[in-house]
Amino acid sequence: MKIALLGSGNVATHMSKALIKAGHSITQVWSRNHNHAVEFALEIGADSINNIESILPEIDIIIIAVNDNGIEKAASQIPYHSRQLVLHTSGTTPLSVLEKYTPNCGVMYPLQTFSKLVDVDFSSIPLCIEGNNSEALHQIKAIASQLSKNINEVNSHQRALLHISAVFACNFTNHFYYIAQQILENNNLNFDLLRPLIQETTDKIMLNMPSEVQTGPAYRNDEQTMEEHLAILQAQPNWQELYQKLSQDIVKIHQPSSGRPK
Amino acid sequence: MKIALLGSGNVATHMSKALIKAGHSITQVWSRNHNHAVEFALEIGADSINNIESILPEIDIIIIAVNDNGIEKAASQIPYHSRQLVLHTSGTTPLSVLEKYTPNCGVMYPLQTFSKLVDVDFSSIPLCIEGNNSEALHQIKAIASQLSKNINEVNSHQRALLHISAVFACNFTNHFYYIAQQILENNNLNFDLLRPLIQETTDKIMLNMPSEVQTGPAYRNDEQTMEEHLAILQAQPNWQELYQKLSQDIVKIHQPSSGRPK
Repeated sequence: MKIALLGSGNVATHMSKALIKAGHSITQVWSRNHNHAVEFALEIGADSINNIESILPEIDIIIIAVNDNGIEKAASQIPYHSRQLVLHTSGTTPLSVLEKYTPNCGVMYPLQTFSKLVDVDFSSIPLCIEGNNSEALHQIKAIASQLSKNINEVNSHQRALLHISAVFACNFTNHFYYIAQQILENNNLNFDLLRPLIQETTDKIMLNMPSEVQTGPAYRNDEQTMEEHLAILQAQPNWQELYQKLSQDIVKIHQPSSGRPK
Repeated sequence: MKIALLGSGNVATHMSKALIKAGHSITQVWSRNHNHAVEFALEIGADSINNIESILPEIDIIIIAVNDNGIEKAASQIPYHSRQLVLHTSGTTPLSVLEKYTPNCGVMYPLQTFSKLVDVDFSSIPLCIEGNNSEALHQIKAIASQLSKNINEVNSHQRALLHISAVFACNFTNHFYYIAQQILENNNLNFDLLRPLIQETTDKIMLNMPSEVQTGPAYRNDEQTMEEHLAILQAQPNWQELYQKLSQDIVKIHQPSSGRPK
């Protein structure tokens, strides 16, 4: 398959590596920042193009892996040719955005967090796919199954919900690690002290449901400890507010008869 | 060393196993619920006692591993004998609570999340220790280093801060996994889809600082996606509020010049 890739960010980088490994060739690369496209094209042996209008007629698949707010604009500039398949890789953008411009389109959303410098095993990433017709879906399945063992057909609404749950389970979780980092650094304590706890918290989730392994002062409705923590956090009203809100929620779910902590 | 253990919960259970493995014997066990004490004593080959007053004079170390709000009451009931060491295992209770009752006391706080049914490798758990005099501290160090390779001397204030950061990094994180679980279950999606993402999020933290590996719509200040997510969460005002608050914080930290997302 000859592929044109629009975008040069984390998803574009990791997906291109997986596609090349599966034997496909990335023929053309475009990025909003042309310098990025030039650099990225060099890295993966593709041609960089200045304009989306320069996509060649012989390209089989066009993959749009740009920021969500650039997807529709990119899709609108593609010079469409018959039987070409246009895909985007976004969690939240509905397939209907592409359907406005082409009869043959779909989504291949990798449910994973990508950083440029961290390698990931693409073959275990859940790929959430959708196609606007059975032929498109068939094609997407074929490519997706070359990249990963974990293929899931979901519709646009389910995909957005998966994205939201990923924001909670990954992005917001990392922000809590960041708050912990700040609390420790402000008091000359090493973040290493928390790493075994973070590892164990995740290990439990690999084998159990979150609802089964909740622990902590709020789970035990230990009002004394929660009050002491809130007092210590007084100088950081933002963290104090989060502490209170999350604790209230945990008490409400796990100790519904105990009322709310103060 | 002859040890009396007050408490029969998760910390008491896991710490007693580690102590026995290190060659100590748990001689007496007390629990607020006497049936728990009987059951626990049977399991670890100890005697169960009905009253804390029954702790024998020949006991070398008394470990108080009860809920925080029960520590002072338990400490006040111990029949003190010279050279006995009294420890508690709590993150937030200051050492001064024990000092009111005995001249020889300290803390051994395991910075880990324990569930009764999940085994943990005690030897890698950070033990945060404190003693009220050099002899007590020396004794605590000796015991702690038999249980774990990871011994850290911290004062009561630092220990409370470690506990608070553990609440963010473990308890609140698990609550976000729970929210993700709910979002998926409500929409017939399998939580398994998120497990590789959760694993990768943690793997990154083992090698990087949280501030270096933040990703997601808020990190990119992708207002369109955040607004769509907030709209989808409209039926769940609680999750919507958390989404908004966390996103605002992430934008403020990582995109400080962009203003706040709406």
